[in-house]
Amino acid sequence: MAQKLSIVKIGGNVIENKEELSKFLTAFSKIEGLKILVHGGGKLATELGKKLGIESTLINGRRITDAQSLELITMVYGGLANKNIVSKLQGVNCNAIGLSGADANVIQAVKRPVKDINYGFAGDIVAVNSNAINTMLQNKWTPVFCALTHNKSGQLLNTNADTIASEIAIAMSSLYDTTLYYCFEKKGVLLDITNENSVVKKINTETYKELLDSKVIADGMLPKLENCFNALHKKVTTVCIGDVSMLDKNETLYTTITL
Amino acid sequence: MAQKLSIVKIGGNVIENKEELSKFLTAFSKIEGLKILVHGGGKLATELGKKLGIESTLINGRRITDAQSLELITMVYGGLANKNIVSKLQGVNCNAIGLSGADANVIQAVKRPVKDINYGFAGDIVAVNSNAINTMLQNKWTPVFCALTHNKSGQLLNTNADTIASEIAIAMSSLYDTTLYYCFEKKGVLLDITNENSVVKKINTETYKELLDSKVIADGMLPKLENCFNALHKKVTTVCIGDVSMLDKNETLYTTITL
Repeated sequence: MAQKLSIVKIGGNVIENKEELSKFLTAFSKIEGLKILVHGGGKLATELGKKLGIESTLINGRRITDAQSLELITMVYGGLANKNIVSKLQGVNCNAIGLSGADANVIQAVKRPVKDINYGFAGDIVAVNSNAINTMLQNKWTPVFCALTHNKSGQLLNTNADTIASEIAIAMSSLYDTTLYYCFEKKGVLLDITNENSVVKKINTETYKELLDSKVIADGMLPKLENCFNALHKKVTTVCIGDVSMLDKNETLYTTITL
Repeated sequence: MAQKLSIVKIGGNVIENKEELSKFLTAFSKIEGLKILVHGGGKLATELGKKLGIESTLINGRRITDAQSLELITMVYGGLANKNIVSKLQGVNCNAIGLSGADANVIQAVKRPVKDINYGFAGDIVAVNSNAINTMLQNKWTPVFCALTHNKSGQLLNTNADTIASEIAIAMSSLYDTTLYYCFEKKGVLLDITNENSVVKKINTETYKELLDSKVIADGMLPKLENCFNALHKKVTTVCIGDVSMLDKNETLYTTITL
């Protein structure tokens, strides 16, 4: 049996709030076995951008990354968010190492081709360096990824953190038994969006179709779940969606997705 | 004979200027054998601080690091400067990995005790993790350090890049034959400050005393050279001071310091 590896993605809402972040990082540090963290930081970037007079333009939730915005997110994702998370993890005895895709060439991407929309310096992942990541894991370092990649020709690129998490999980599945955790502000996939406790505890290929047909899954949850099933079809063992308490072994209220 | 290791420190003046930086990074990438880069970024931080209304207070060239300034330099040193340097090095086939002292716990420091001056979140180095750095070198990664350390209890700290470079060189001297390069805007230690070509090519313990007695070495050069001799007394083999061209093997106009 392959060794277990947990890949956890946290959203910007958690990062922004010092108490929530601290609670999350303590829970993350207690996950047994090998683990990887992927974080966003979009809201922090938008805030700093306002102070600097750099406007954030989002289309379908994706940032249009011009040169100024790229500088902004390089500071916020790679610096402010990443280094704070790493130092706080060190404080709870988790030997974290912060990474952009450029560091040790861990994630290579190409600048997204312009079709209808020019996303600017947005990167579509072409290669995850599972050997380099594995070397870090084997040295007992816990990789902490921010939402930056590079094109291996000197250009940093902005890549969605959800996508980075699933691509890392997929790449590492050749070496490990991987579970991908999407940690956000809700307790999971909800049957009734107005009821926080109406969590669908288990979803598989069959029940997924039923949920789609009955329109329970719609809007923002649609691409998220497509992403999850894509990962599962590419050998990720399990995907879980929930809030910070999902990382507590005794907590049962979150969504578990398998094929 | 121990293997050779080059530790190169570049100052903020080089980083700020895109062309100078590119020239430097190409020269750095061509250094044969194992190497480590340490960079500052103070001028970039001061500039961004102005835009954000965060004033930079320097006493004896050292930044007074309050909470706001720490956020500022975390963004600029750890994010903007470090990730740009790493991605540009990847572009010239140097497999760089960007680090603050918190990453893989490579440099631990303590918050400087308050005596006459309260430097705020300034860190005095207590331990360089030569094992972790060596693991990276052995994996053919080139560590790129920014001027941030941590206290291992969740707090990032601001540490002078010259000091980081010499402490790394000292720590790595137990494993390697180390040369420490201080790369700045002048061609070396000058006999006549108004003549760029009056470089003192070689300094040793004996000639150092003569230069001190004759007051050739004064002001800003004094602490720099004290730092150099401290490193040499702690087993660093050679220290070199000069501008970017010093890294070119055919260039001879720079200062070489030995015991």
